[in-house]
Amino acid sequence: MATEQEITTLADQLEELLAGNSVDKAVELMASIHPADQADIYSRLEDDRREAFLALLSAEGMADFLSHLEEEPRLEIIAAMPRVVLSRVLDRMDNDEAADVLQTLPPSDTARVLANMATAGEVTPLLGHAEESAGGLMTRGFVALHKDMTAQQAVTYLRLRKPFAEEAYYLYVLDALNHLEGVVNLRELIVAAPEATIEEIMARDVVSVVTGTDQEECARVLQRYRLRALPVVDEDGVLNGIITADDLIDVITEEATEDMYRMAGLLGAEGVFTPVLESARRRIAWLSINMVTAFFAAAMVAIFEDTIDKVTALAVFMPIVAGQGGNAGIQTITIVVRGLALGEIELQDARRVLAKEVAIGVIKGITFGLAVGIVAWVWKDSWALGLVVGLALLLNMLVAGLAGTLIPLTLRMMRLDPAVASGVFVTGFTDVIGFLLLLGLATLLISQLT
Amino acid sequence: MATEQEITTLADQLEELLAGNSVDKAVELMASIHPADQADIYSRLEDDRREAFLALLSAEGMADFLSHLEEEPRLEIIAAMPRVVLSRVLDRMDNDEAADVLQTLPPSDTARVLANMATAGEVTPLLGHAEESAGGLMTRGFVALHKDMTAQQAVTYLRLRKPFAEEAYYLYVLDALNHLEGVVNLRELIVAAPEATIEEIMARDVVSVVTGTDQEECARVLQRYRLRALPVVDEDGVLNGIITADDLIDVITEEATEDMYRMAGLLGAEGVFTPVLESARRRIAWLSINMVTAFFAAAMVAIFEDTIDKVTALAVFMPIVAGQGGNAGIQTITIVVRGLALGEIELQDARRVLAKEVAIGVIKGITFGLAVGIVAWVWKDSWALGLVVGLALLLNMLVAGLAGTLIPLTLRMMRLDPAVASGVFVTGFTDVIGFLLLLGLATLLISQLT
Repeated sequence: MATEQEITTLADQLEELLAGNSVDKAVELMASIHPADQADIYSRLEDDRREAFLALLSAEGMADFLSHLEEEPRLEIIAAMPRVVLSRVLDRMDNDEAADVLQTLPPSDTARVLANMATAGEVTPLLGHAEESAGGLMTRGFVALHKDMTAQQAVTYLRLRKPFAEEAYYLYVLDALNHLEGVVNLRELIVAAPEATIEEIMARDVVSVVTGTDQEECARVLQRYRLRALPVVDEDGVLNGIITADDLIDVITEEATEDMYRMAGLLGAEGVFTPVLESARRRIAWLSINMVTAFFAAAMVAIFEDTIDKVTALAVFMPIVAGQGGNAGIQTITIVVRGLALGEIELQDARRVLAKEVAIGVIKGITFGLAVGIVAWVWKDSWALGLVVGLALLLNMLVAGLAGTLIPLTLRMMRLDPAVASGVFVTGFTDVIGFLLLLGLATLLISQLT
Repeated sequence: MATEQEITTLADQLEELLAGNSVDKAVELMASIHPADQADIYSRLEDDRREAFLALLSAEGMADFLSHLEEEPRLEIIAAMPRVVLSRVLDRMDNDEAADVLQTLPPSDTARVLANMATAGEVTPLLGHAEESAGGLMTRGFVALHKDMTAQQAVTYLRLRKPFAEEAYYLYVLDALNHLEGVVNLRELIVAAPEATIEEIMARDVVSVVTGTDQEECARVLQRYRLRALPVVDEDGVLNGIITADDLIDVITEEATEDMYRMAGLLGAEGVFTPVLESARRRIAWLSINMVTAFFAAAMVAIFEDTIDKVTALAVFMPIVAGQGGNAGIQTITIVVRGLALGEIELQDARRVLAKEVAIGVIKGITFGLAVGIVAWVWKDSWALGLVVGLALLLNMLVAGLAGTLIPLTLRMMRLDPAVASGVFVTGFTDVIGFLLLLGLATLLISQLT
């Protein structure tokens, strides 16, 4: 484990050793560094040192290093790696990650790399599952026991099989047709009497998901039942693989980032260090949608240009009615989108959520409608202006509650991601309706306002 | 594991058994239900059935049930529980959760409950740590080994000690003064030769955190190094406890929710089912801040009322300049806030991030400034209007990039949460500056516009 400071120091040391061709010392230093830290160091090296850095890693070291690396540099390294070497590296990765790598290769390469892999038999069944499904996340390396074994036999079996660390925590009990019958955790096996049978110590009601389950749902199940790994079965209940908690922790982080990004109008996996032009291209794509909603808002104002010409003070209250409505809408949509993501709201709760958000909208509307209405009345000494501004704000708050609830619920009902309902749409909507209310009411009461 | 549908069915069955006083059958049914599902069922029961439901649980069952329950009902149940019973229940909880419960009791009760607890010796040292620090999350129930033990002796020791499942995965190697020297995972212990010493099989470079480490940082370390548990040491390197992955998964989810909420202007742990008045109170508190920024924007417009009176078309472009600027700002601030939360950006990257966001701001500004400027020019056949609108939009995009980067980075520098920099502030800022630019430029060029 290394701090920022230590990583900088390690990177400098390594750079120096590589510059001086002290390969042996560099290999030694490298072996003492955690792969997560190696990945950080790699990203700080000058381009012309990177090849020398990679040459220091054994096949096993390379597998660990790649597992901790960001996607972009990983793809570059893999693309440049001789195919025979890649086979050896993938053999040393978790199957699920090996399968992910294989799926990024051109089809002809996939076949060639698989042909040289010792673990091809385990990795091949993982190909062809959607990347964001349980099938795409699972690894084949689970440990299976039979219920007639004794605890002692199971321990002996484990000693011979030497499973990877992350796969050994839960031991799954299968029948002759590989149906999942029960689960024993490693600790229970150790503390059990040696002659106890697996059947006696196993838990029967195993929490599992099917191969097609979405990764977000897998993460929810893991979290709900506080598990360390999640077995994945096919439609017949045959155990196909397991998903380890570390992969699902990554899913939880990724999904939260994705939701935040979508709500803010950011596309895909843009990071802080995505190249400028690429970032600009993606953001402009989304802002163009906002441009459309902004033009609608502008068109609404244009319709009432005459009214503004007569009562310029209305322009002063435009940002208040639109801004308060927009922010109220963002509050509601955030609550609803996050509630849907965490599984706190289901579609059947729609009516209850809507009733609540409408009630809050009315309370917010009355509070701010009164406050701003009175300010407008006093400022221009016009009760009609106060009435128009206050009523427009009140109603726009109500609209914000409705839109903030109904947009994401409708998207979920259409099986789309509710987060795409994003700030852009809800603020666009409250802008348009806010101006319609403010300027429309003013036009109706124009005789009182001039 | 139960679906929504199954939970409803189970709740109905249980309600029926309770109504018919079939206590034995109800106990039996309850024992077959996972505590996570019990918690869901409890929340669906009528108030007058809840007491009968709770009476079905043993002390151990109650401990599991409470661990899976939401905070609000948990506090209610604990408040109503006889203190002697509570001691027995807390003895069966993970120490970290027991400590959390004790910290919610009135001080006089804490002492009384602790006095009757068998695990008081383990739980007491956990009290007094900040709830959101490593100390507040850790449990004392780790398994400690000595390096001179053999693998066989360690297994025998485990059999006698029978640790809780979640604490048995990593075994920590301590010296005579309890300094953390190494770690062995359970799987390594099983596959090792029985006569191998712990010293031979342990890993020495143990990733750990100190008691005061913030929970968000703990989660980052766990995720970075792909661990299942994180040892917590004091300043001298003495092992104080461990944090298990399931607690940190909850932290990751909570922190992501908190960031989303703060950015949207939502206070604290509001959920979908927080009572209406409580929700309204919290949201109004935050919208009041937005009200202030909206009044600034309105004041800016009021300053230029004369200009709008002369050129009403400006009012039409107000929502476009403010809206596009605001959304561009939200894009930037989301990238920066999330990057800081995930540890992708550190303060030393500030200049690089700022340079990038300014560059993107210029590209976005030129794109939309040109597009909207041309529309304005053609619409009113006025090159001056096109210039004013286009330039205001371009500059506001640049301001959005600056504000979206500098606000969260400054907050982080002041050791405040960058997420509080939220949409409300950045859109308030781009509104005010957008109107200043649009109406200010128009005032300067007023002779060309009328």
